Amino acid sequence: MAGSFLHIQIDKNLKLSLSRQVYEKIRDDILMGSLQPETRLPATRRLAKELEISRNVVMGAYDQLHAEGYIESSSGSYTRVADDTHYRQYRKTPKEIKILDVEGSSCDIEFKTGVPDLALFPRTLWGKYLKNAVKFARKEELTYDQPNGHEGFRKVLADYLYKSRGIRVLPSQIVITSGATQALFLTAKILYTDGCDAVLEDPGGYGVIEILKTAGFGLNPVKTNGTGFDISRMHFTRNTRLVYVTPSHQFPMGYTMPAATRIGLLKRLQDRDIYIVEDDYDSEFRYDGSPIHPLKALDPDRVIYIGSFSKVLSPALRIGYAVVPEKLIGRFSKLKQFSDAQSPLIDQIALKNFIQDGAFENHVYKMKKSYQKKRNILISTLKETFGSGVKIYGENAGIHIVAGFENRCFDLNGKLELCHNRVRIQSVEKHVINKGDHTHQLIFGYGNLTREEIVDGINKLNRFISVPGCS
Amino acid sequence: MAGSFLHIQIDKNLKLSLSRQVYEKIRDDILMGSLQPETRLPATRRLAKELEISRNVVMGAYDQLHAEGYIESSSGSYTRVADDTHYRQYRKTPKEIKILDVEGSSCDIEFKTGVPDLALFPRTLWGKYLKNAVKFARKEELTYDQPNGHEGFRKVLADYLYKSRGIRVLPSQIVITSGATQALFLTAKILYTDGCDAVLEDPGGYGVIEILKTAGFGLNPVKTNGTGFDISRMHFTRNTRLVYVTPSHQFPMGYTMPAATRIGLLKRLQDRDIYIVEDDYDSEFRYDGSPIHPLKALDPDRVIYIGSFSKVLSPALRIGYAVVPEKLIGRFSKLKQFSDAQSPLIDQIALKNFIQDGAFENHVYKMKKSYQKKRNILISTLKETFGSGVKIYGENAGIHIVAGFENRCFDLNGKLELCHNRVRIQSVEKHVINKGDHTHQLIFGYGNLTREEIVDGINKLNRFISVPGCS
Repeated sequence: MAGSFLHIQIDKNLKLSLSRQVYEKIRDDILMGSLQPETRLPATRRLAKELEISRNVVMGAYDQLHAEGYIESSSGSYTRVADDTHYRQYRKTPKEIKILDVEGSSCDIEFKTGVPDLALFPRTLWGKYLKNAVKFARKEELTYDQPNGHEGFRKVLADYLYKSRGIRVLPSQIVITSGATQALFLTAKILYTDGCDAVLEDPGGYGVIEILKTAGFGLNPVKTNGTGFDISRMHFTRNTRLVYVTPSHQFPMGYTMPAATRIGLLKRLQDRDIYIVEDDYDSEFRYDGSPIHPLKALDPDRVIYIGSFSKVLSPALRIGYAVVPEKLIGRFSKLKQFSDAQSPLIDQIALKNFIQDGAFENHVYKMKKSYQKKRNILISTLKETFGSGVKIYGENAGIHIVAGFENRCFDLNGKLELCHNRVRIQSVEKHVINKGDHTHQLIFGYGNLTREEIVDGINKLNRFISVPGCS
Repeated sequence: MAGSFLHIQIDKNLKLSLSRQVYEKIRDDILMGSLQPETRLPATRRLAKELEISRNVVMGAYDQLHAEGYIESSSGSYTRVADDTHYRQYRKTPKEIKILDVEGSSCDIEFKTGVPDLALFPRTLWGKYLKNAVKFARKEELTYDQPNGHEGFRKVLADYLYKSRGIRVLPSQIVITSGATQALFLTAKILYTDGCDAVLEDPGGYGVIEILKTAGFGLNPVKTNGTGFDISRMHFTRNTRLVYVTPSHQFPMGYTMPAATRIGLLKRLQDRDIYIVEDDYDSEFRYDGSPIHPLKALDPDRVIYIGSFSKVLSPALRIGYAVVPEKLIGRFSKLKQFSDAQSPLIDQIALKNFIQDGAFENHVYKMKKSYQKKRNILISTLKETFGSGVKIYGENAGIHIVAGFENRCFDLNGKLELCHNRVRIQSVEKHVINKGDHTHQLIFGYGNLTREEIVDGINKLNRFISVPGCS
């Protein structure tokens, strides 16, 4: 009689409920064709008795099969397998899948760029701000908000940008993004037209190059000279749509773009439909004086200004922003809306309060002090170790410097790795588009290293560098 | 003599530091051309005396101007305005910008879809999980991680997907995204090729339509029939690249796609280079039985499975995911990396622990109970109010239902708004591509309404509907 052919094995020790086990067995048999369409299933009472389980369990399984269309009730109250339910390609879900743990190669000391001192991240304080943000959020702050970001946060940010950089922007011109990465990605997307290209500094940022390429842009690199962006070498094509620059602290070389270059750049762009993307990625950490007055302030309608809290607080937060010219803000918001709806609100509220209470300013002050000390040790150790053979670039700001080594040549695939010494450091060449001019330079990110690690890392590097050069 | 022509007005009551005031005045004068290149600036000592401020203040301002390239030191230790620093277009930063507060039209009662009960969001508990996530995070969890998302979270999620949906996936096949929106956006982006189109259910989701269009897709809608997706009406073009479906709970109509349709769809796609995007947007809330067995389980290599925590916890969190076929995962991760680097880590860690501790399961259970009651009240009130003239769709799952009203016609620009009654409700037509067949149907999202609001809203709606229909 019906029932026996189901061969259901009930295992009361499995995590899966009994009902789920019955359901899965019948479903898999139907999908794999061992239970053919039209086949009559046993009555629930009878199957329950046979399997020595409660009838409710069987009814639960049948209900689920019914809801999913695997079985249907015939007129005579019989239950039968539905038509067109055999799928030859179906493979039963394996009980377990073996997960291979891939171990990444780790390094003791990594001179990594763009990573702040994670040991000084204000865990307790930030945790408190998060907790309170959830606790006191208005109901509408727990759901879909404006794609541009939390309005209160944008107001505080506008205020902060005025106080710290001297640019006046409306909160409605700000879009909160998932880090500077998304700000640049969205910018590139809205400016992109078929076959267009982007002018950018060379060397520039490896990540920036990839983002622009991902968005479809052709690259039109301009070699930097002794003071950074060399506008005399800059040429536009008919298809140039944006100029990407890092005027406050050129990445990776660290130059500050002089006023005359800024003005020259703006003049060259007059009467052209080209936007400037100004990436102000680490302005907070300037050791001699205030943050640099942004390009954005000179020509608000021409410049998309990008900033981030990754370097000041943590890249794990993913909070950045773009200040967008009036003319583009509608398209920018719309793209944000349909790419990820909005950025997480609790974090925005926490950061708003963190800034408003002055905790942010205290944090920046504390970090700057600490970085300044590390920077001094880094530079003095480099000079002690390599003497006049080393030249330092970009030491006035940020959390990395570049060092050039006379008669040395690194590269090579962009990344210098001293695996036997367990020290990792990037070459400038990694960030170069037209390769060749920066093979003697290395980038020392020092934000997340202790002073001991900095000294130790340079000593280990020295042993490697002392080996005859590769050129 | 030099100095007097600077006309600097120091205001000791301003928030701006004195040094900043001196710097800004000189910078603006240079930019606007009232201080011409070559002009000699007064010595710091002299200017300090004239302004009755400390010499350090003036030196600070000069240092900043020097760093930014507005002034330079001449051989004779004089300080002069640098060349090419005049920018005619420059406008001084206004002291203040008037912010116009735009008041949105608010409604007392809004039958909004996709919003969970925000009053039941576990604020205290979630706050605790956030706080602990920050407190106990490993150092590497505070910085750049894998673009795919936190590894521990992906492991827990893989486990959860098996337990709750019966699909076995590797953590390495999961990409954590900023909500289902980003999961769909990235999917569309990697599948897009020039001039391609997407097959989708009609009616579908308004947001989905916009995301696909934003990614560049042409739309190839398939009308739903009485059980949802009608594969007999489905046709592909040479350029069809994806089929977007909501098999567990068709949006907005609420059908469950029957097994035969699922299998028929997969068979039609055999030997074609077309992917299925399965959006399982509210599977957790199924009132009669378990979540539906996903299409993903029938053909893992063909289906990109999208899920979200927006409906279960809160859309403000922005945590969603895609389970991506092996063949696409490399491109998917790379696009995630260069579109926003990664999703915020603290939230991922908090949610990982929340699921692992069983708090998530408790929350789902509690919410389901509450929604079931609201749903029952909604349906009984509709039936009491409109009698046999109302037909209900999709009541088995989710946090919205559709109601069809005999001989009525709504539309209109997609949104029915009863402003004088302060009730807002969406028409199904808003989500329709080929307009016309759903003008008698409204969508009742009830997740975030109280039972009183539901009853009140329907009563107000009744007064409106009683007015002679628009067709």
